[in-house]
Amino acid sequence: MNQQGKLYLIPSSMGEGAVIGLPQYAIEVVHTLDTFVAERAKTARRFLKDIKTPVPFNDMTFYELNKHTDKNERETFLDDIFEGKNMGLLSEAGCPGVADPGAEIVALAHRRGVEVVPFVGPSSILLALMASGMNGQQFAFTGYLPSKPEARIKALKREESQSIAHNQTRIFIETPYRNNALIQDALKHLSPYTRFCIAVDLTLPTQFISTKTIREWQQNPPPDFHKRPAIFLIYNSSQKTYKAKKPPSSKFKGKRRR
Amino acid sequence: MNQQGKLYLIPSSMGEGAVIGLPQYAIEVVHTLDTFVAERAKTARRFLKDIKTPVPFNDMTFYELNKHTDKNERETFLDDIFEGKNMGLLSEAGCPGVADPGAEIVALAHRRGVEVVPFVGPSSILLALMASGMNGQQFAFTGYLPSKPEARIKALKREESQSIAHNQTRIFIETPYRNNALIQDALKHLSPYTRFCIAVDLTLPTQFISTKTIREWQQNPPPDFHKRPAIFLIYNSSQKTYKAKKPPSSKFKGKRRR
Repeated sequence: MNQQGKLYLIPSSMGEGAVIGLPQYAIEVVHTLDTFVAERAKTARRFLKDIKTPVPFNDMTFYELNKHTDKNERETFLDDIFEGKNMGLLSEAGCPGVADPGAEIVALAHRRGVEVVPFVGPSSILLALMASGMNGQQFAFTGYLPSKPEARIKALKREESQSIAHNQTRIFIETPYRNNALIQDALKHLSPYTRFCIAVDLTLPTQFISTKTIREWQQNPPPDFHKRPAIFLIYNSSQKTYKAKKPPSSKFKGKRRR
Repeated sequence: MNQQGKLYLIPSSMGEGAVIGLPQYAIEVVHTLDTFVAERAKTARRFLKDIKTPVPFNDMTFYELNKHTDKNERETFLDDIFEGKNMGLLSEAGCPGVADPGAEIVALAHRRGVEVVPFVGPSSILLALMASGMNGQQFAFTGYLPSKPEARIKALKREESQSIAHNQTRIFIETPYRNNALIQDALKHLSPYTRFCIAVDLTLPTQFISTKTIREWQQNPPPDFHKRPAIFLIYNSSQKTYKAKKPPSSKFKGKRRR
């Protein structure tokens, strides 16, 4: 019987022109691999070329994991590992399994008793959190905000109230062509004391990261970020200050009810 | 007037024997720096030696940021940047600003209008999340669980109910000498259907990562992880299945009240 292979989780670069964020120890292992699970073989090949893999593309096998992949087929994706092959799992951009479909393959690996080895690499969520200066002791990532204006405003307010209630940094994303609409809604509907971080084009030469209070952003509006990959963070720790700013309507209501 | 410097956020290795997780593009910049903010200068020097900085230690300046540092002194830590110096912020292990005091310095940088540049590097939280196979679209990190047994059990159950309520992966840590107690409590008090990931010694040669349901862990208990750095994740997505397991007490109560 062959010795069982491992599944390496390989973070890829964050887009064209981005830095190679994979450390040397990981690059050396990836150079030995010829079998990959990836969302698109084309993007995977481009990344493998960028890190100068010595393996010829003709000798490589790619299993494509996307919405067209049949469920039964997915279950077979790790079969090669039981033939003794090491395999790599690649994301379209950033870390596989974090805000991408790769988590399903990692879960499959655990179910089948395959050793999973995650490599250090670029994650926009983590880079933005580090760079925001917000609370890194407690935070939550909630994915995409809703696309409809009313639902988005409601979601922004919910993010703010969750930040206050749990003393959490709240991290979320938006489809790049709705960035400006989201920023406008945040500036209009959040508390002036809430800190708001806008992180755009992370690890690219055009990287922009800035944290200001909503009031400061209102006074110095951000540039146009239309169609640029962005990540947003809010944090409001001042539970008491925030509550004191509100008119004491609930108290008066209580009195009236009597 | 000098051109203003930048603040580089430099993730360090995860302990002795750990891989160098800093990518080449970042190492090249760190090699040009001689002024750092760090929790302990000693640990910072060891890391800079590991990545073979060409700058002699005698030419370096370290500002130590820890519980002994005076608040007014902290406010001056970035003054050199206004003299045209680039500075580096280092954590004891992993990413500065994520579950360490560095966030305060990053917040100061934003307030003073200093450009912040986060580098890709090792984060135990992110490595564990990737490798857990759990939901990477929605997750929350809650830091340390309480140390007292009763409070810890309550916190574990709260983590589980939050995972169910928000379809979130819940990530938390424990002081290493209480790992085994936490694992025992999780195996005893969480739902048998909850998935529980134990990630130990990340990026070290002794790395262990495994996700099983609580029932599977009960049948195959984990080895002894006493005093080894660990991170824990739970995920339970099966809202309906889980609720069906509970007796329908609330309904009966409602009827009785009438």
